[in-house]
Amino acid sequence: MRRRAALVCSLLAAFGAAGAWLAADEGQWLPEQLPRLDWSELRQRGLELAPEQLWNGEEGLLSAAVSLEGCSAAFVSADGLIATNHHCGYGAINLNSTPERNLLRDGFTAEALADELPAPGTRVTVVRRIEDVTAQVQAAAEQAGTDPGRRWEAVQRKVRELVAEGEKEPSTSCLVTSFYEGKEWRRIFRTELRDVRLVYAPPESVGNYGGEVDNWMWPRHTADFCFLRAYAAPDGSPAAYSPSNVPYRPAHWLQVSGEGVDAGDLVMVLGYPGRTERYLTSVMLEAREAFFFPRRHDVYGRILAALREATAGDAAEALKVASRIRSLENRHKNADGMIWGLHRNQTVERRRAEEQEFRAWVDADPVRQRAYGGVLDALTDLDLSVIARQERDFVLDELRAQLQLFALALRLARLHLERMKPDLEREQGFQERDLARLRTEVENFGKSFALEADAAVFGVLLEEADRLPADQRIRGVDQWLKVYRQGGESHAALARRVLQQSPLAGAEARGQMLEEALRPDWTAAAVDPLGALSTLLLPEVEEQKQARYRVSGRRMEVGARWIQALEEWRGRRFYPDANGTLRVSIATVRGYVPQEGVRYDPPTTLSGMLAKHTGEPPFDLPESLRAAAAREDAGGIPVCFLADADTTGGNSGSPIVDGKGRLVGLNFDRVFENVAGDYGYSPERSRNIGVDVRFILWLLDRVQPAPRLLAELGIEKAPNTDREEDRPRSQGN
Amino acid sequence: MRRRAALVCSLLAAFGAAGAWLAADEGQWLPEQLPRLDWSELRQRGLELAPEQLWNGEEGLLSAAVSLEGCSAAFVSADGLIATNHHCGYGAINLNSTPERNLLRDGFTAEALADELPAPGTRVTVVRRIEDVTAQVQAAAEQAGTDPGRRWEAVQRKVRELVAEGEKEPSTSCLVTSFYEGKEWRRIFRTELRDVRLVYAPPESVGNYGGEVDNWMWPRHTADFCFLRAYAAPDGSPAAYSPSNVPYRPAHWLQVSGEGVDAGDLVMVLGYPGRTERYLTSVMLEAREAFFFPRRHDVYGRILAALREATAGDAAEALKVASRIRSLENRHKNADGMIWGLHRNQTVERRRAEEQEFRAWVDADPVRQRAYGGVLDALTDLDLSVIARQERDFVLDELRAQLQLFALALRLARLHLERMKPDLEREQGFQERDLARLRTEVENFGKSFALEADAAVFGVLLEEADRLPADQRIRGVDQWLKVYRQGGESHAALARRVLQQSPLAGAEARGQMLEEALRPDWTAAAVDPLGALSTLLLPEVEEQKQARYRVSGRRMEVGARWIQALEEWRGRRFYPDANGTLRVSIATVRGYVPQEGVRYDPPTTLSGMLAKHTGEPPFDLPESLRAAAAREDAGGIPVCFLADADTTGGNSGSPIVDGKGRLVGLNFDRVFENVAGDYGYSPERSRNIGVDVRFILWLLDRVQPAPRLLAELGIEKAPNTDREEDRPRSQGN
Repeated sequence: MRRRAALVCSLLAAFGAAGAWLAADEGQWLPEQLPRLDWSELRQRGLELAPEQLWNGEEGLLSAAVSLEGCSAAFVSADGLIATNHHCGYGAINLNSTPERNLLRDGFTAEALADELPAPGTRVTVVRRIEDVTAQVQAAAEQAGTDPGRRWEAVQRKVRELVAEGEKEPSTSCLVTSFYEGKEWRRIFRTELRDVRLVYAPPESVGNYGGEVDNWMWPRHTADFCFLRAYAAPDGSPAAYSPSNVPYRPAHWLQVSGEGVDAGDLVMVLGYPGRTERYLTSVMLEAREAFFFPRRHDVYGRILAALREATAGDAAEALKVASRIRSLENRHKNADGMIWGLHRNQTVERRRAEEQEFRAWVDADPVRQRAYGGVLDALTDLDLSVIARQERDFVLDELRAQLQLFALALRLARLHLERMKPDLEREQGFQERDLARLRTEVENFGKSFALEADAAVFGVLLEEADRLPADQRIRGVDQWLKVYRQGGESHAALARRVLQQSPLAGAEARGQMLEEALRPDWTAAAVDPLGALSTLLLPEVEEQKQARYRVSGRRMEVGARWIQALEEWRGRRFYPDANGTLRVSIATVRGYVPQEGVRYDPPTTLSGMLAKHTGEPPFDLPESLRAAAAREDAGGIPVCFLADADTTGGNSGSPIVDGKGRLVGLNFDRVFENVAGDYGYSPERSRNIGVDVRFILWLLDRVQPAPRLLAELGIEKAPNTDREEDRPRSQGN
Repeated sequence: MRRRAALVCSLLAAFGAAGAWLAADEGQWLPEQLPRLDWSELRQRGLELAPEQLWNGEEGLLSAAVSLEGCSAAFVSADGLIATNHHCGYGAINLNSTPERNLLRDGFTAEALADELPAPGTRVTVVRRIEDVTAQVQAAAEQAGTDPGRRWEAVQRKVRELVAEGEKEPSTSCLVTSFYEGKEWRRIFRTELRDVRLVYAPPESVGNYGGEVDNWMWPRHTADFCFLRAYAAPDGSPAAYSPSNVPYRPAHWLQVSGEGVDAGDLVMVLGYPGRTERYLTSVMLEAREAFFFPRRHDVYGRILAALREATAGDAAEALKVASRIRSLENRHKNADGMIWGLHRNQTVERRRAEEQEFRAWVDADPVRQRAYGGVLDALTDLDLSVIARQERDFVLDELRAQLQLFALALRLARLHLERMKPDLEREQGFQERDLARLRTEVENFGKSFALEADAAVFGVLLEEADRLPADQRIRGVDQWLKVYRQGGESHAALARRVLQQSPLAGAEARGQMLEEALRPDWTAAAVDPLGALSTLLLPEVEEQKQARYRVSGRRMEVGARWIQALEEWRGRRFYPDANGTLRVSIATVRGYVPQEGVRYDPPTTLSGMLAKHTGEPPFDLPESLRAAAAREDAGGIPVCFLADADTTGGNSGSPIVDGKGRLVGLNFDRVFENVAGDYGYSPERSRNIGVDVRFILWLLDRVQPAPRLLAELGIEKAPNTDREEDRPRSQGN
């Protein structure tokens, strides 16, 4: 194809010199882009490290930043100690909690190495090497011919091959992923650590102080941190949990600084931002603003209400859904922020105006017309085809994402189908390599399964499916409702009855079902209404997948041209959209103006934390903290700070380091005004929130003592002075 | 009495040199105190006026600031044009509104003098002269002997005499009131203007933009202003409304400045602050925090709910209670702010510590022991005696304050009783001079009387009365309930039935009842259940009055010693608590830190106002304003600003003047963090909010044009430039 040469040529350009044209501190940089930033400016701003210390092309200090179950985290000792957010360790803490020994409520300190608690299912991956595989992936697409669906399938196959090939290296987990709308591809070699243990957690009243009230908000006083530790086999190689494992010894780890940072200081946020969409068409942006986020806000609101009602008065059940509720609340408020921010920033209107300018620019030059004529129209048509089925896709996606028991049924049905294919042909997640993990999950399923809550959510989603417009019905659901719904039965009652009837609801049958699903003659649909629904839905899930493949195949071609056109039009270089891979954001500690007449400034202090204390959750500090605070000059103990880092979901737990590369904070949130930053960085409003490492040290020293950890962190004493008796006490203003 | 000499001696001291020891900008200064402020400092800060221009001992520019029905206001033209808050002119606007011609909703512009709308009942008083009458009042108290009740009665009698004597001057309304806990007395000669007309009001969507959501809040974008005009008889003397009246010509009026003020500038707030309590004992402060404001918050919340329910779906009734609801909402949020602020400032704990220090100071010196020994105990005992009956007093006061029809019944019953005494012996408000006003009120009663709403509130208060503890029952209510309450009837149903039965509910009977009440043989109690309740309650109201007289008489003695002791102890001078008399606060335009990590800054602009617009009340700007805004650089048009003036309720509508004495804004609110400022000024949190006069001029020029008014204000054109086409539009951030 003609365009291929251009694509290959732009490869270097795309990862070329970057930074100067951008808004200060905009950019989620790839490690390989770092050397091309303006280092004389960065040195002036206080960055004392050399670029090759951060990343030498294969590794560097950046690899101290690790990925943890959709979050980020950092090695902070030579013995595999990991610092991350409390909300990122939430699953590990929750899993080790019971109503009798509630670590969420009371916090946890492992006095000795032997006391550290296994957290099955928690994995940490460490980037070891990044390789450019664009040529291989592109070649596979070319060979597949012109049909977009087939091209994407070939791409997927190539990705699986590359992964499988890469994982022949010992103790390796590979990730092959695309950058710039499929224009670039990288293979990331990662060491996967599967034995991760809980070391230290503050009580939720501290680690989630302010709860949903303060979530996405400034001023903030949340000590959102915990410590985990990665373990490995005695020979240092990654291994599943074993009592004989020993602390893992990472190649790189971050030193903790007790010196802190002030407003105006340079900081860097290292981590794994999940997803941004900064190069969308106006029609897709409009669909996000007018349909997707409002619908999500509505449906998640109803799911939350259903979950709360279903678990009210049952402490054990409530504990099981605590993590889900928290995650849903977070996304519910996020959707609110998206609606607010997209409207506030007039994102759609601006993008429309840009597109008009772009078209005029293309039309003004015959060479450009040849290269880019129709590229925006093609992209827009592609997006319109997706928008045409967005209501149905929304429900189908939520049916697969929100439920516990039905998701399991669906996975077993899928596993059964995929097992009939050769291993490399199977969907990712259903290959031989995934089986052990599936078994662990099924084994642990009961710990977090809450039947009444799951049924309540199922009811909401069945109702949603039954409300879809005539041209976007889900056939499988319609057929299933016809058979299984009893006359006059509400969706909620149906959902509850069906879940109670399902053999999957019982712990023993569940394990058997997994093993049976591996057999070709399995017939779960006959004995399990959820199996029946799964069987009925799978063809549509497959159709949806194929449609998405076609879109992806087409987008890989059109999107790459689009990016190239944007580069030429704007005369700029890009950083790629976030995609869960290791990035660096270079930032400044600074406040912002959330609305006219109001200024938000870092830092907050213990004094402000005490001022918020009411004695009622989520502002109910433990007595131990208040007693310790009474012995201090609380206004001198920093708690949280703001910076203008370019972050998104996935950056939770990201280490924030100073110009010397030392840990000064843990990123844990963005501000409400920055939620819609996923659609465009704003120098005025893009702010992230971190907990100050000095506050963590203070807690470890004075409130919930952990001398063992302090020693391991190389800290003898928290850096705050004792209260000066004669100094007037701050009122926490 | 031995203490008298000391009292008289401290007279000069109390009003002596003041200011240097206070927190910058603290102080609600009496006009007579102004010359003794630090004028070299004030000149440095930008005050260009000489003290005698403000007040020469008898009059000055200060008398351009007038009192308006519990609010403040200012003459702004030689023809009696008055600027005040929209919420201060609310009654006048409301009274002229009907569902068909809704001036609240649509605003109002009188195109010509003849179009200005009478606002019966609205009075403006202008300070003409202030006279020291301490000696006379003290003498009357001395002559009455030692019984505190008798002493206070004598004081009251003397006050009435002084008023009556003063009002022999033509067109004079006199106010005799005490300062410093009864230690000082002044007679204020005021010109009372009774023909006040509505000239201009923006629609409520502008004049009350932000409504209850933004009330007591920053950042603010409310154009809380309206214009009234005072009229007088053709000879210039004050007169009741007459079509032949002409605009009143005030001795002083304020020039309007289009130049505005910036952060850091000196401003002065002139006006009539209603009530502060800055010298309370800790026990009384505690009662405010623990009982009074929480109870008020609770009861007003229930009254508000009852009012809303009773008028839901009836536009005419809703209009009638709009003003009451707004006032209650305001006080409801105020109570919330009081609870928050008293707790936040640890006011009680601090006062307790101060009192301990005070006692130690007294005990350390035998001379002090003689002069002040026991003074704090005596004051505390006095307060404890009041606290002992606070629940009952609260309900009795609210029964008299919250109701329309029952308040009328009670006043008629009282009028009937008072008529039996010689005129000078009668309670204030029931004398011969008050009769005309009573008749006007009864005549206009129906315009704002909403039976269902009144019944709903009555129900809430009867329920409150019926909940009182055994030792604080209201006998009259108990007796009345026994007779009038039918078996099983709810308080709400009883209230409704009784109001419907009352002859006072009918317009004609109402006027007759007033005239009949003047006759000695009146027997309303027999025909009107409300009359019966009035008759049963009056003895207790009288008892309450007598008890309060005793407290006041005693306080006049003890409180004066207390103030004197404080003066000596602190080595400072005082400004007296606010008491509704003319005061000056000298202030600086400045922001504040409402909580750690947040800074509020003046000014706000039209840009921020537009950013708040949602299209739903209370953020629903009229199309005319938005269209006008689209033609401007909205970020350059100031709307509101903050200053650290020492204000309280009653300062609403206060002119804010610059160092040249020109009007730059109208005060209309305090910030939430300053609600509890009534109990102590805080340099960090005491902030008032004013609407910028430049915004008022912009509205008059561009949105709801009033060229006649602009000419009268001496302004040819609003001071803002047209939009610069090429300048990027502010986003209202």
